[in-house]
Amino acid sequence: MTASLPQLEICFSPALLPSYQISGKIVVLVDILRATSSICAAFHNGVASVIPVGSVEEARVWKNNGFLLAGETDGVKLSFADFGNSPFNFMTEAVRGREIVYCTTNGTKAVKNVAGADMLLIGSYLNITALCDYLQLHKDKDVFILCAGWKNRFSLEDSLFAGALAERLLRTENYQSQCDSVTAAVDLWKVAEKDLPAYIEKCAHRHRLKNLNLDDVIEYCHTTDMAPCVPVLSDNKFVNINTLP
Amino acid sequence: MTASLPQLEICFSPALLPSYQISGKIVVLVDILRATSSICAAFHNGVASVIPVGSVEEARVWKNNGFLLAGETDGVKLSFADFGNSPFNFMTEAVRGREIVYCTTNGTKAVKNVAGADMLLIGSYLNITALCDYLQLHKDKDVFILCAGWKNRFSLEDSLFAGALAERLLRTENYQSQCDSVTAAVDLWKVAEKDLPAYIEKCAHRHRLKNLNLDDVIEYCHTTDMAPCVPVLSDNKFVNINTLP
Repeated sequence: MTASLPQLEICFSPALLPSYQISGKIVVLVDILRATSSICAAFHNGVASVIPVGSVEEARVWKNNGFLLAGETDGVKLSFADFGNSPFNFMTEAVRGREIVYCTTNGTKAVKNVAGADMLLIGSYLNITALCDYLQLHKDKDVFILCAGWKNRFSLEDSLFAGALAERLLRTENYQSQCDSVTAAVDLWKVAEKDLPAYIEKCAHRHRLKNLNLDDVIEYCHTTDMAPCVPVLSDNKFVNINTLP
Repeated sequence: MTASLPQLEICFSPALLPSYQISGKIVVLVDILRATSSICAAFHNGVASVIPVGSVEEARVWKNNGFLLAGETDGVKLSFADFGNSPFNFMTEAVRGREIVYCTTNGTKAVKNVAGADMLLIGSYLNITALCDYLQLHKDKDVFILCAGWKNRFSLEDSLFAGALAERLLRTENYQSQCDSVTAAVDLWKVAEKDLPAYIEKCAHRHRLKNLNLDDVIEYCHTTDMAPCVPVLSDNKFVNINTLP
């Protein structure tokens, strides 16, 4: 570990962003249940782009302009949306090649707060290896892992994934960290990875989804490399990085 | 664990406070290195009260009005202060029976943000058993553990203590928690407690203090029950709860 290695940081909530400097860094957005998992599923299934919107009003405008809309607030599908935000909705023939507008409680709101970043990527268990491989191509850049959290609070499932990703990146010995959140997340991941399904039972959001009958996605959203792709924000929409010129 | 048990929550940073409701709850403020440890040391040594101030300007006004001032910014003693914020400064004969004005980077600023709480207590390893005993006398109340953090970021040493305290309270079976931060902090504590001095070496702030030659306090600040007392905020100053009418 030398002073010249790029820095790795984790931010546990968008509400903590003002205390960090993200200019010039690669930001990886994490919202395991379910936004960033769903976006990976969408691109793996050939969706053309995903347009993140942060409010119900904005979602309605896009819908009225003829776009396919995936939307929820607090886990409940918006009445005027085409479907909710389960990754299973993005695996159908109907969405292939389409532009999808995506409105969520936590995940897409975070997008608006990282305007100064060098690049905004999407991270989930579904694309963790593809994501790490891509970051290794840009290993001179600082990496900033941003957990979407739940209503601006610390979220266990996002933080665990942040730890899993940080642990992989640190293992390459191409990064250094002086960030307490990295230390905590990596150590939590080491506890959780011994039996991830059992550990996920401890997450508050897992129980919120269960109460909404939306917990069918939990196993899928915690499966490594099921949807290899690297979604990147480009001109205010996410695209698969392979499709960029 | 039943629905009627009071709730236990942890908040990892004052910047996350707007997403919580603290009205009617007992708030325990935690700033292990060094504010809440120093305040416990002060009361154990017979200091009459500790007046928290959040800005250098405010500290100067108190000093000009003849008060003893302990003050730092970013770990460096204020030029016009009587002494810095090491707990060792509060163990002398000179401070016994006195009112001390206390200005710190992180700890005392958090005090201003919890105005709606039922009660604000000070927590540290130095008073953990006395604090738990006191909380057990009020075990119908929700307990909200507020980590002062470092410049609004997640702090490992504060979060570890929050986990230690939460683990003790949950063990009484008088509390319940649906808070992801509690789950994370308790599990981190279980990792750390096996060898706390070694784990503390991983904390970023431990290295900041070392660079300032202020790390002589670290072992003391992580010693259980060295300064049994329960500091409580009353009329904008902390007093030892035993001295309240």
